[in-house]
Amino acid sequence: MNARIFVGDTRFDAIAAGDRGVAYGDGLFETMRACRGNVPWWDAHWSRLQRGAQQLRMTLPEAAQVREEAAQLLSGADAVLKLIVTRGAGGRGYAPDTDATPTWILSQHSLPAESPGDGIAARWCETRLALQPALAGIKHCNRLEQVLARAEWDDTAMRDRDALEGLMRSTEGDVVGATAANLFVLRDGRWLTPRIDRCGVAGVCRAWVLGELGASEVRLGVTEVETAEAVFLCNAVRGILPVARLGGCTWPLHPQVSALRERLAAAHPGFVINLAANNPETT
Amino acid sequence: MNARIFVGDTRFDAIAAGDRGVAYGDGLFETMRACRGNVPWWDAHWSRLQRGAQQLRMTLPEAAQVREEAAQLLSGADAVLKLIVTRGAGGRGYAPDTDATPTWILSQHSLPAESPGDGIAARWCETRLALQPALAGIKHCNRLEQVLARAEWDDTAMRDRDALEGLMRSTEGDVVGATAANLFVLRDGRWLTPRIDRCGVAGVCRAWVLGELGASEVRLGVTEVETAEAVFLCNAVRGILPVARLGGCTWPLHPQVSALRERLAAAHPGFVINLAANNPETT
Repeated sequence: MNARIFVGDTRFDAIAAGDRGVAYGDGLFETMRACRGNVPWWDAHWSRLQRGAQQLRMTLPEAAQVREEAAQLLSGADAVLKLIVTRGAGGRGYAPDTDATPTWILSQHSLPAESPGDGIAARWCETRLALQPALAGIKHCNRLEQVLARAEWDDTAMRDRDALEGLMRSTEGDVVGATAANLFVLRDGRWLTPRIDRCGVAGVCRAWVLGELGASEVRLGVTEVETAEAVFLCNAVRGILPVARLGGCTWPLHPQVSALRERLAAAHPGFVINLAANNPETT
Repeated sequence: MNARIFVGDTRFDAIAAGDRGVAYGDGLFETMRACRGNVPWWDAHWSRLQRGAQQLRMTLPEAAQVREEAAQLLSGADAVLKLIVTRGAGGRGYAPDTDATPTWILSQHSLPAESPGDGIAARWCETRLALQPALAGIKHCNRLEQVLARAEWDDTAMRDRDALEGLMRSTEGDVVGATAANLFVLRDGRWLTPRIDRCGVAGVCRAWVLGELGASEVRLGVTEVETAEAVFLCNAVRGILPVARLGGCTWPLHPQVSALRERLAAAHPGFVINLAANNPETT
Protein backbone atom coordinates (compact mmCIF):
# COMPACT_ATOMS: atom_id res chain seq x y z
CA MET A 1 0.00 0.00 0.00
CA ASN A 2 1.32 3.37 -1.10
CA ALA A 3 0.51 5.93 1.61
CA ARG A 4 1.39 9.34 3.01
CA ILE A 5 0.69 10.43 6.58
CA PHE A 6 0.45 14.03 7.80
CA VAL A 7 -0.28 15.86 11.03
CA GLY A 8 -1.50 19.29 10.05
CA ASP A 9 0.77 20.27 7.15
CA THR A 10 3.75 18.16 8.20
CA ARG A 11 4.52 14.73 6.82
CA PHE A 12 5.22 11.82 9.18
CA ASP A 13 6.27 8.21 8.64
CA ALA A 14 3.57 6.64 10.78
CA ILE A 15 0.68 7.35 13.09
CA ALA A 16 1.29 8.32 16.72
CA ALA A 17 0.28 6.00 19.55
CA GLY A 18 -2.03 8.64 21.01
CA ASP A 19 -4.02 9.34 17.85
CA ARG A 20 -7.77 9.50 18.49
CA GLY A 21 -8.39 7.66 15.23
CA VAL A 22 -6.91 4.52 16.78
CA ALA A 23 -8.36 5.13 20.23
CA TYR A 24 -11.97 5.88 19.32
CA GLY A 25 -12.40 5.73 15.53
CA ASP A 26 -12.62 9.52 15.98
CA GLY A 27 -12.34 10.44 12.32
CA LEU A 28 -13.82 10.52 8.84
CA PHE A 29 -12.88 8.96 5.52
CA GLU A 30 -13.49 9.15 1.80
CA THR A 31 -12.89 6.42 -0.77
CA MET A 32 -12.53 7.82 -4.27
CA ARG A 33 -12.02 6.57 -7.79
CA ALA A 34 -9.09 8.21 -9.57
CA CYS A 35 -8.88 8.24 -13.35
CA ARG A 36 -5.44 9.01 -14.81
CA GLY A 37 -4.52 10.68 -11.55
CA ASN A 38 -7.63 12.84 -11.30
CA VAL A 39 -10.59 12.38 -8.97
CA PRO A 40 -13.62 13.53 -10.99
CA TRP A 41 -15.87 13.63 -7.90
CA TRP A 42 -13.30 15.37 -5.69
CA ASP A 43 -15.58 18.29 -4.84
CA ALA A 44 -18.45 16.02 -3.81
CA HIS A 45 -16.12 13.96 -1.59
CA TRP A 46 -14.65 17.07 -0.01
CA SER A 47 -18.13 18.51 0.64
CA ARG A 48 -19.21 15.35 2.41
CA LEU A 49 -16.00 15.44 4.46
CA GLN A 50 -16.83 19.02 5.43
CA ARG A 51 -20.35 18.04 6.51
CA GLY A 52 -18.86 15.23 8.61
CA ALA A 53 -16.29 17.54 10.17
CA GLN A 54 -19.03 19.99 11.08
CA GLN A 55 -21.12 17.23 12.65
CA LEU A 56 -18.15 15.91 14.67
CA ARG A 57 -16.76 19.42 15.28
CA MET A 58 -13.42 18.37 13.79
CA THR A 59 -10.85 20.50 12.01
CA LEU A 60 -9.97 19.48 8.44
CA PRO A 61 -6.55 19.89 6.89
CA GLU A 62 -6.01 22.52 4.19
CA ALA A 63 -7.95 21.36 1.11
CA ALA A 64 -5.37 22.56 -1.41
CA GLN A 65 -2.55 20.65 0.27
CA VAL A 66 -4.60 17.44 0.45
CA ARG A 67 -5.45 17.69 -3.22
CA GLU A 68 -1.85 18.39 -4.22
CA GLU A 69 -0.50 15.50 -2.17
CA ALA A 70 -3.18 13.21 -3.62
CA ALA A 71 -2.13 14.15 -7.16
CA GLN A 72 1.51 13.47 -6.32
CA LEU A 73 0.68 10.12 -4.74
CA LEU A 74 -1.49 9.04 -7.67
CA SER A 75 0.96 10.35 -10.30
CA GLY A 76 -1.42 9.71 -13.17
CA ALA A 77 -2.70 6.29 -12.08
CA ASP A 78 -6.12 4.69 -12.40
CA ALA A 79 -6.59 3.73 -8.77
CA VAL A 80 -8.63 3.90 -5.60
CA LEU A 81 -7.64 6.84 -3.41
CA LYS A 82 -8.51 6.70 0.27
CA LEU A 83 -8.35 9.68 2.61
CA ILE A 84 -8.71 9.29 6.37
CA VAL A 85 -8.83 12.39 8.59
CA THR A 86 -8.71 11.88 12.35
CA ARG A 87 -9.16 14.45 15.09
CA GLY A 88 -5.46 14.01 15.81
CA ALA A 89 -3.67 13.21 19.04
CA GLY A 90 -5.57 13.85 22.21
CA GLY A 91 -4.27 11.79 25.09
CA ARG A 92 -6.55 9.63 27.18
CA GLY A 93 -10.23 10.45 27.67
CA TYR A 94 -13.21 11.13 25.43
CA ALA A 95 -13.12 14.95 25.74
CA PRO A 96 -11.94 16.24 22.38
CA ASP A 97 -9.35 18.99 22.25
CA THR A 98 -10.85 21.83 20.22
CA ASP A 99 -7.34 22.89 19.17
CA ALA A 100 -6.27 19.42 18.01
CA THR A 101 -4.32 19.26 14.77
CA PRO A 102 -5.87 16.66 12.45
CA THR A 103 -3.98 13.62 11.27
CA TRP A 104 -4.61 12.69 7.64
CA ILE A 105 -3.64 9.66 5.65
CA LEU A 106 -3.74 9.35 1.88
CA SER A 107 -3.40 5.86 0.44
CA GLN A 108 -3.53 4.47 -3.06
CA HIS A 109 -4.99 1.05 -3.82
CA SER A 110 -5.63 -1.07 -6.93
CA LEU A 111 -8.99 -0.74 -8.60
CA PRO A 112 -11.29 -3.62 -7.66
CA ALA A 113 -11.71 -6.47 -10.13
CA GLU A 114 -14.43 -5.91 -12.73
CA SER A 115 -17.78 -7.29 -11.61
CA PRO A 116 -20.05 -9.18 -14.04
CA GLY A 117 -21.72 -6.73 -16.42
CA ASP A 118 -25.12 -8.42 -16.13
CA GLY A 119 -25.17 -8.03 -12.36
CA ILE A 120 -23.73 -9.22 -9.08
CA ALA A 121 -24.91 -11.67 -6.45
CA ALA A 122 -25.80 -10.21 -3.06
CA ARG A 123 -26.97 -11.63 0.26
CA TRP A 124 -28.83 -10.50 3.36
CA CYS A 125 -26.60 -9.81 6.37
CA GLU A 126 -27.63 -10.82 9.88
CA THR A 127 -25.74 -7.94 11.50
CA ARG A 128 -28.05 -4.95 11.92
CA LEU A 129 -27.31 -1.24 11.82
CA ALA A 130 -28.12 0.65 15.02
CA LEU A 131 -30.25 3.80 14.79
CA GLN A 132 -28.04 6.79 15.56
CA PRO A 133 -29.26 10.01 13.95
CA ALA A 134 -26.27 11.91 15.38
CA LEU A 135 -23.91 9.93 13.13
CA ALA A 136 -26.21 9.05 10.23
CA GLY A 137 -25.19 10.10 6.75
CA ILE A 138 -21.57 10.98 7.43
CA LYS A 139 -18.67 8.69 6.58
CA HIS A 140 -17.12 8.40 10.03
CA CYS A 141 -14.60 5.80 11.14
CA ASN A 142 -16.85 3.87 13.57
CA ARG A 143 -17.41 0.92 11.25
CA LEU A 144 -17.51 -2.19 13.42
CA GLU A 145 -21.05 -2.93 12.25
CA GLN A 146 -19.84 -3.10 8.65
CA VAL A 147 -16.82 -5.17 9.65
CA LEU A 148 -19.05 -7.67 11.47
CA ALA A 149 -21.49 -7.79 8.55
CA ARG A 150 -18.74 -8.33 5.99
CA ALA A 151 -17.23 -11.07 8.17
CA GLU A 152 -20.47 -13.08 7.91
CA TRP A 153 -19.37 -14.51 4.58
CA ASP A 154 -16.20 -14.98 2.61
CA ASP A 155 -15.14 -16.17 -0.82
CA THR A 156 -14.31 -19.65 0.41
CA ALA A 157 -17.58 -20.48 2.19
CA MET A 158 -19.85 -22.56 -0.01
CA ARG A 159 -22.97 -20.61 0.96
CA ASP A 160 -22.93 -17.10 -0.52
CA ARG A 161 -19.46 -17.67 -1.88
CA ASP A 162 -20.18 -15.59 -4.96
CA ALA A 163 -21.83 -12.73 -3.09
CA LEU A 164 -20.00 -9.51 -3.76
CA GLU A 165 -22.06 -7.52 -1.29
CA GLY A 166 -24.41 -7.93 1.64
CA LEU A 167 -27.54 -5.90 2.29
CA MET A 168 -27.99 -4.56 5.80
CA ARG A 169 -31.16 -3.80 7.73
CA SER A 170 -31.47 -1.49 10.70
CA THR A 171 -32.25 -2.89 14.14
CA GLU A 172 -35.87 -1.97 13.32
CA GLY A 173 -35.87 -4.08 10.18
CA ASP A 174 -35.84 -1.50 7.42
CA VAL A 175 -33.31 -1.98 4.63
CA VAL A 176 -30.51 0.61 4.72
CA GLY A 177 -28.04 -0.39 2.00
CA ALA A 178 -25.09 -2.69 1.43
CA THR A 179 -21.99 -2.89 3.64
CA ALA A 180 -20.11 -0.52 1.30
CA ALA A 181 -22.69 0.70 -1.20
CA ASN A 182 -26.09 2.39 -1.39
CA LEU A 183 -29.21 0.67 -2.70
CA PHE A 184 -31.81 1.66 -5.32
CA VAL A 185 -34.91 -0.31 -6.32
CA LEU A 186 -37.48 0.20 -9.06
CA ARG A 187 -41.12 -0.25 -8.00
CA ASP A 188 -44.19 0.71 -10.01
CA GLY A 189 -42.03 2.73 -12.34
CA ARG A 190 -40.48 4.80 -9.49
CA TRP A 191 -36.89 4.59 -8.28
CA LEU A 192 -36.59 4.39 -4.51
CA THR A 193 -33.63 4.47 -2.12
CA PRO A 194 -33.54 4.08 1.66
CA ARG A 195 -33.54 7.19 3.80
CA ILE A 196 -30.28 7.64 5.67
CA ASP A 197 -31.55 9.87 8.46
CA ARG A 198 -31.14 7.24 11.21
CA CYS A 199 -28.21 5.18 9.91
CA GLY A 200 -26.37 4.60 6.65
CA VAL A 201 -24.03 6.74 4.59
CA ALA A 202 -24.88 9.56 2.17
CA GLY A 203 -22.88 8.11 -0.71
CA VAL A 204 -21.34 10.40 -3.31
CA CYS A 205 -22.54 8.13 -6.14
CA ARG A 206 -25.96 7.89 -4.40
CA ALA A 207 -26.27 11.69 -4.62
CA TRP A 208 -25.43 11.59 -8.34
CA VAL A 209 -27.98 8.79 -8.93
CA LEU A 210 -30.69 10.59 -6.91
CA GLY A 211 -30.36 13.53 -9.26
CA GLU A 212 -30.24 11.43 -12.43
CA LEU A 213 -33.25 9.25 -11.59
CA GLY A 214 -35.31 11.70 -9.57
CA ALA A 215 -35.50 8.89 -7.01
CA SER A 216 -37.41 9.14 -3.73
CA GLU A 217 -35.92 8.52 -0.30
CA VAL A 218 -38.21 6.17 1.62
CA ARG A 219 -38.25 3.43 4.26
CA LEU A 220 -37.97 0.07 2.49
CA GLY A 221 -38.75 -3.38 3.86
CA VAL A 222 -37.15 -6.66 2.77
CA THR A 223 -40.22 -7.65 0.73
CA GLU A 224 -40.23 -4.36 -1.11
CA VAL A 225 -36.66 -5.04 -2.20
CA GLU A 226 -37.30 -8.67 -3.11
CA THR A 227 -40.37 -7.85 -5.19
CA ALA A 228 -38.81 -4.86 -6.97
CA GLU A 229 -38.62 -4.76 -10.78
CA ALA A 230 -34.92 -3.91 -10.66
CA VAL A 231 -32.29 -3.53 -7.92
CA PHE A 232 -28.85 -1.97 -8.05
CA LEU A 233 -26.11 -0.89 -5.69
CA CYS A 234 -23.77 2.02 -6.18
CA ASN A 235 -20.67 3.57 -4.72
CA ALA A 236 -18.00 6.03 -5.78
CA VAL A 237 -15.44 3.31 -6.55
CA ARG A 238 -17.51 0.73 -8.43
CA GLY A 239 -20.20 2.96 -9.87
CA ILE A 240 -23.49 1.21 -10.69
CA LEU A 241 -23.70 -2.47 -9.70
CA PRO A 242 -26.86 -4.15 -11.01
CA VAL A 243 -28.04 -6.89 -8.63
CA ALA A 244 -28.72 -10.11 -10.56
CA ARG A 245 -29.35 -12.29 -7.52
CA LEU A 246 -30.27 -11.73 -3.88
CA GLY A 247 -30.88 -14.88 -1.85
CA GLY A 248 -33.54 -16.73 -3.89
CA CYS A 249 -34.51 -13.76 -6.06
CA THR A 250 -33.11 -13.08 -9.52
CA TRP A 251 -33.37 -10.15 -11.91
CA PRO A 252 -32.31 -9.78 -15.55
CA LEU A 253 -30.36 -6.63 -16.36
CA HIS A 254 -32.95 -3.85 -16.56
CA PRO A 255 -32.67 -1.44 -19.51
CA GLN A 256 -32.98 1.57 -17.16
CA VAL A 257 -29.97 0.31 -15.20
CA SER A 258 -27.91 -0.16 -18.38
CA ALA A 259 -28.87 3.33 -19.48
CA LEU A 260 -27.90 4.78 -16.10
CA ARG A 261 -24.53 3.07 -16.30
CA GLU A 262 -23.94 4.64 -19.68
CA ARG A 263 -24.86 8.06 -18.33
CA LEU A 264 -22.43 7.55 -15.44
CA ALA A 265 -19.65 6.61 -17.87
CA ALA A 266 -20.34 9.80 -19.78
CA ALA A 267 -20.33 11.88 -16.59
CA HIS A 268 -17.26 10.30 -14.90
CA PRO A 269 -14.48 8.98 -17.11
CA GLY A 270 -13.33 6.39 -14.55
CA PHE A 271 -16.49 4.35 -14.97
CA VAL A 272 -15.98 3.69 -18.67
CA ILE A 273 -13.78 0.81 -17.56
CA ASN A 274 -16.69 -0.89 -15.81
CA LEU A 275 -18.79 -0.83 -18.95
CA ALA A 276 -16.23 -2.97 -20.77
CA ALA A 277 -17.35 -5.80 -18.52
CA ASN A 278 -20.66 -5.77 -20.34
CA ASN A 279 -18.96 -7.01 -23.45
CA PRO A 280 -18.21 -10.74 -23.16
CA GLU A 281 -15.36 -10.41 -25.66
CA THR A 282 -13.38 -8.25 -23.29
CA THR A 283 -13.87 -10.30 -20.12
CA MET B 1 2.64 10.11 26.90
CA ASN B 2 4.84 7.12 27.49
CA ALA B 3 3.86 4.37 25.01
CA ARG B 4 4.97 1.15 23.36
CA ILE B 5 3.59 -0.15 20.06
CA PHE B 6 3.72 -3.75 18.85
CA VAL B 7 2.52 -5.77 15.89
CA GLY B 8 2.30 -9.35 17.06
CA ASP B 9 5.41 -9.79 19.23
CA THR B 10 7.54 -7.17 17.48
CA ARG B 11 7.97 -3.63 18.71
CA PHE B 12 7.45 -0.70 16.32
CA ASP B 13 7.89 3.05 16.66
CA ALA B 14 4.46 4.03 15.37
CA ILE B 15 1.23 2.71 13.88
CA ALA B 16 1.05 1.77 10.19
CA ALA B 17 -1.10 3.79 7.78
CA GLY B 18 -3.16 0.69 6.93
CA ASP B 19 -4.07 -0.27 10.47
CA ARG B 20 -7.75 -1.17 10.86
CA GLY B 21 -7.82 0.59 14.21
CA VAL B 22 -7.46 3.92 12.42
CA ALA B 23 -9.63 2.95 9.45
CA TYR B 24 -12.65 1.53 11.27
CA GLY B 25 -12.07 1.69 15.03
CA ASP B 26 -11.67 -2.07 14.57
CA GLY B 27 -10.25 -2.82 17.98
CA LEU B 28 -10.70 -3.10 21.74
CA PHE B 29 -9.24 -1.29 24.72
CA GLU B 30 -8.80 -1.50 28.46
CA THR B 31 -8.06 1.36 30.85
CA MET B 32 -6.52 0.15 34.07
CA ARG B 33 -5.34 1.55 37.37
CA ALA B 34 -1.81 0.57 38.27
CA CYS B 35 -0.58 0.67 41.84
CA ARG B 36 3.18 0.63 42.32
CA GLY B 37 3.53 -0.91 38.87
CA ASN B 38 0.94 -3.64 39.42
CA VAL B 39 -2.56 -3.83 37.98
CA PRO B 40 -4.66 -5.50 40.69
CA TRP B 41 -7.59 -6.10 38.33
CA TRP B 42 -5.40 -7.35 35.47
CA ASP B 43 -7.22 -10.70 35.18
CA ALA B 44 -10.65 -9.06 35.00
CA HIS B 45 -9.44 -6.64 32.31
CA TRP B 46 -7.87 -9.44 30.31
CA SER B 47 -11.05 -11.55 30.56
CA ARG B 48 -13.16 -8.71 29.22
CA LEU B 49 -10.65 -8.23 26.40
CA GLN B 50 -11.00 -11.93 25.58
CA ARG B 51 -14.79 -11.67 25.49
CA GLY B 52 -14.51 -8.69 23.15
CA ALA B 53 -12.03 -10.50 20.91
CA GLN B 54 -14.40 -13.46 20.70
CA GLN B 55 -17.32 -11.19 19.80
CA LEU B 56 -15.31 -9.36 17.12
CA ARG B 57 -13.46 -12.57 16.07
CA MET B 58 -10.13 -10.86 16.64
CA THR B 59 -6.82 -12.38 17.63
CA LEU B 60 -5.23 -11.13 20.85
CA PRO B 61 -1.50 -10.83 21.44
CA GLU B 62 0.21 -13.24 23.82
CA ALA B 63 -1.01 -12.40 27.33
CA ALA B 64 2.34 -13.00 29.03
CA GLN B 65 4.18 -10.62 26.72
CA VAL B 66 1.58 -7.89 27.18
CA ARG B 67 1.81 -8.21 30.94
CA GLU B 68 5.59 -8.17 30.93
CA GLU B 69 5.76 -5.11 28.66
CA ALA B 70 3.17 -3.38 30.83
CA ALA B 71 5.27 -3.99 33.94
CA GLN B 72 8.38 -2.63 32.19
CA LEU B 73 6.50 0.45 30.97
CA LEU B 74 5.03 1.16 34.40
CA SER B 75 8.30 0.43 36.24
CA GLY B 76 6.68 0.67 39.64
CA ALA B 77 4.54 3.74 39.03
CA ASP B 78 1.08 4.64 40.30
CA ALA B 79 -0.52 5.42 36.95
CA VAL B 80 -3.25 4.76 34.43
CA LEU B 81 -2.32 2.02 31.98
CA LYS B 82 -4.16 1.90 28.68
CA LEU B 83 -4.05 -1.06 26.31
CA ILE B 84 -5.46 -0.83 22.78
CA VAL B 85 -5.56 -3.96 20.61
CA THR B 86 -6.55 -3.53 16.96
CA ARG B 87 -7.20 -6.22 14.38
CA GLY B 88 -3.98 -5.08 12.70
CA ALA B 89 -3.30 -4.05 9.14
CA GLY B 90 -5.83 -5.11 6.57
CA GLY B 91 -5.78 -2.92 3.49
CA ARG B 92 -8.93 -1.31 2.17
CA GLY B 93 -12.36 -2.84 2.62
CA TYR B 94 -14.42 -4.02 5.57
CA ALA B 95 -13.71 -7.75 5.16
CA PRO B 96 -11.43 -8.71 8.05
CA ASP B 97 -8.41 -10.89 7.39
CA THR B 98 -8.74 -13.91 9.68
CA ASP B 99 -4.94 -14.25 9.74
CA ALA B 100 -4.30 -10.60 10.65
CA THR B 101 -1.63 -9.99 13.27
CA PRO B 102 -2.97 -7.68 15.99
CA THR B 103 -1.45 -4.30 16.70
CA TRP B 104 -1.26 -3.39 20.38
CA ILE B 105 -0.42 -0.20 22.12
CA LEU B 106 0.42 0.19 25.79
CA SER B 107 0.47 3.70 27.18
CA GLN B 108 1.00 5.13 30.62
CA HIS B 109 -0.83 8.23 31.82
CA SER B 110 -1.01 10.26 35.03
CA LEU B 111 -3.68 9.35 37.54
CA PRO B 112 -6.66 11.70 37.32
CA ALA B 113 -6.95 14.48 39.88
CA GLU B 114 -8.71 13.47 43.07
CA SER B 115 -12.43 14.11 42.93
CA PRO B 116 -14.30 15.60 45.91
CA GLY B 117 -14.77 12.96 48.59
CA ASP B 118 -18.36 13.93 49.27
CA GLY B 119 -19.37 13.46 45.65
CA ILE B 120 -19.11 14.82 42.16
CA ALA B 121 -21.37 16.92 39.98
CA ALA B 122 -22.84 15.23 36.92
CA ARG B 123 -25.11 16.33 34.08
CA TRP B 124 -27.47 14.77 31.54
CA CYS B 125 -26.02 14.43 28.04
CA GLU B 126 -28.13 15.16 24.97
CA THR B 127 -26.20 12.64 22.82
CA ARG B 128 -27.93 9.26 22.95
CA LEU B 129 -26.50 5.75 22.74
CA ALA B 130 -27.75 3.66 19.82
CA LEU B 131 -29.11 0.18 20.54
CA GLN B 132 -26.65 -2.35 19.14
CA PRO B 133 -26.74 -5.71 20.92
CA ALA B 134 -23.92 -7.04 18.70
CA LEU B 135 -21.49 -4.58 20.29
CA ALA B 136 -23.05 -4.09 23.73
CA GLY B 137 -20.97 -4.84 26.79
CA ILE B 138 -17.56 -5.00 25.15
CA LYS B 139 -15.04 -2.17 25.25
CA HIS B 140 -14.55 -1.68 21.53
CA CYS B 141 -12.96 1.34 19.85
CA ASN B 142 -16.10 2.73 18.14
CA ARG B 143 -16.59 5.57 20.61
CA LEU B 144 -17.86 8.54 18.63
CA GLU B 145 -21.04 8.61 20.72
CA GLN B 146 -18.97 9.10 23.88
CA VAL B 147 -16.78 11.70 22.15
CA LEU B 148 -19.86 13.67 21.06
CA ALA B 149 -21.40 13.38 24.53
CA ARG B 150 -18.22 14.51 26.27
CA ALA B 151 -17.90 17.43 23.84
CA GLU B 152 -21.26 18.78 25.02
CA TRP B 153 -19.63 20.49 27.97
CA ASP B 154 -16.21 21.60 29.03
CA ASP B 155 -14.52 23.11 32.04
CA THR B 156 -14.76 26.64 30.71
CA ALA B 157 -18.48 26.75 29.91
CA MET B 158 -20.46 28.41 32.69
CA ARG B 159 -23.26 25.85 32.54
CA ASP B 160 -22.16 22.46 33.88
CA ARG B 161 -18.63 23.73 34.27
CA ASP B 162 -18.06 21.68 37.37
CA ALA B 163 -19.58 18.48 35.94
CA LEU B 164 -17.05 15.67 36.05
CA GLU B 165 -19.27 13.27 34.15
CA GLY B 166 -22.35 13.14 31.95
CA LEU B 167 -25.08 10.53 32.12
CA MET B 168 -26.18 9.03 28.82
CA ARG B 169 -29.53 7.62 27.78
CA SER B 170 -30.18 5.23 24.94
CA THR B 171 -32.10 6.37 21.88
CA GLU B 172 -35.13 4.81 23.61
CA GLY B 173 -34.68 6.96 26.69
CA ASP B 174 -33.42 4.48 29.26
CA VAL B 175 -30.38 5.51 31.29
CA VAL B 176 -27.28 3.50 30.40
CA GLY B 177 -24.42 5.03 32.39
CA ALA B 178 -21.92 7.87 32.21
CA THR B 179 -19.62 8.60 29.27
CA ALA B 180 -16.77 6.71 30.95
CA ALA B 181 -18.30 5.08 34.01
CA ASN B 182 -21.13 2.79 35.06
CA LEU B 183 -24.06 3.91 37.20
CA PHE B 184 -25.63 2.51 40.37
CA VAL B 185 -28.68 3.87 42.20
CA LEU B 186 -30.29 2.95 45.52
CA ARG B 187 -34.07 2.66 45.48
CA ASP B 188 -36.27 1.18 48.21
CA GLY B 189 -33.21 -0.33 49.82
CA ARG B 190 -32.11 -2.13 46.62
CA TRP B 191 -29.08 -1.27 44.50
CA LEU B 192 -29.83 -1.11 40.78
CA THR B 193 -27.66 -0.68 37.71
CA PRO B 194 -28.66 -0.38 34.03
CA ARG B 195 -28.63 -3.51 31.90
CA ILE B 196 -25.96 -3.36 29.22
CA ASP B 197 -27.48 -5.88 26.80
CA ARG B 198 -28.33 -3.29 24.11
CA CYS B 199 -25.60 -0.66 24.66
CA GLY B 200 -23.11 0.33 27.33
CA VAL B 201 -19.94 -1.25 28.64
CA ALA B 202 -19.56 -4.12 31.11
CA GLY B 203 -17.18 -2.24 33.40
CA VAL B 204 -14.60 -4.11 35.44
CA CYS B 205 -15.43 -2.04 38.53
CA ARG B 206 -19.15 -2.51 37.77
CA ALA B 207 -18.66 -6.28 37.97
CA TRP B 208 -16.91 -5.94 41.33
CA VAL B 209 -19.69 -3.67 42.65
CA LEU B 210 -22.44 -5.99 41.38
CA GLY B 211 -20.94 -8.77 43.46
CA GLU B 212 -20.40 -6.61 46.56
CA LEU B 213 -23.87 -5.06 46.60
CA GLY B 214 -25.89 -7.91 45.14
CA ALA B 215 -27.27 -5.25 42.79
CA SER B 216 -29.90 -5.95 40.13
CA GLU B 217 -29.52 -5.17 36.43
CA VAL B 218 -32.64 -3.34 35.26
CA ARG B 219 -33.91 -0.72 32.82
CA LEU B 220 -33.83 2.66 34.52
CA GLY B 221 -35.59 5.86 33.52
CA VAL B 222 -34.43 9.41 34.22
CA THR B 223 -36.98 9.86 37.02
CA GLU B 224 -35.85 6.66 38.72
CA VAL B 225 -32.32 8.05 38.84
CA GLU B 226 -33.38 11.51 39.97
CA THR B 227 -35.58 10.18 42.77
CA ALA B 228 -33.07 7.57 43.99
CA GLU B 229 -31.85 7.61 47.60
CA ALA B 230 -28.23 7.51 46.48
CA VAL B 231 -26.40 7.57 43.15
CA PHE B 232 -22.81 6.71 42.31
CA LEU B 233 -20.65 6.11 39.27
CA CYS B 234 -17.75 3.70 39.06
CA ASN B 235 -14.91 2.75 36.79
CA ALA B 236 -11.64 0.89 37.04
CA VAL B 237 -9.53 4.06 37.16
CA ARG B 238 -11.48 6.25 39.59
CA GLY B 239 -13.23 3.57 41.62
CA ILE B 240 -16.45 4.68 43.34
CA LEU B 241 -17.60 8.23 42.55
CA PRO B 242 -20.58 9.31 44.67
CA VAL B 243 -22.84 11.70 42.79
CA ALA B 244 -23.59 14.78 44.91
CA ARG B 245 -25.42 16.71 42.22
CA LEU B 246 -27.14 15.89 38.93
CA GLY B 247 -28.86 18.80 37.23
CA GLY B 248 -31.19 20.16 39.93
CA CYS B 249 -30.95 17.11 42.23
CA THR B 250 -28.58 16.81 45.15
CA TRP B 251 -27.64 13.96 47.45
CA PRO B 252 -25.60 13.89 50.65
CA LEU B 253 -22.92 11.19 50.81
CA HIS B 254 -24.78 7.97 51.66
CA PRO B 255 -23.26 5.74 54.35
CA GLN B 256 -23.62 2.67 52.09
CA VAL B 257 -21.53 4.43 49.41
CA SER B 258 -18.84 5.37 51.95
CA ALA B 259 -18.78 1.80 53.18
CA LEU B 260 -18.48 0.47 49.63
CA ARG B 261 -15.57 2.79 48.97
CA GLU B 262 -13.82 1.47 52.03
CA ARG B 263 -14.37 -2.11 50.89
CA LEU B 264 -12.94 -1.21 47.48
CA ALA B 265 -9.86 0.30 49.10
CA ALA B 266 -9.38 -2.91 51.03
CA ALA B 267 -9.81 -5.02 47.88
CA HIS B 268 -7.69 -2.93 45.50
CA PRO B 269 -4.72 -1.04 46.93
CA GLY B 270 -4.83 1.66 44.22
CA PHE B 271 -8.08 3.05 45.51
CA VAL B 272 -6.74 3.88 48.97
CA ILE B 273 -5.55 7.11 47.39
CA ASN B 274 -9.08 8.13 46.54
CA LEU B 275 -10.18 7.76 50.14
CA ALA B 276 -7.75 10.46 51.17
CA ALA B 277 -10.00 12.92 49.40
CA ASN B 278 -12.62 12.24 52.03
CA ASN B 279 -10.45 13.90 54.56
CA PRO B 280 -10.61 17.68 54.18
CA GLU B 281 -7.18 18.03 55.80
CA THR B 282 -5.50 16.32 52.87
CA THR B 283 -7.30 18.08 50.01
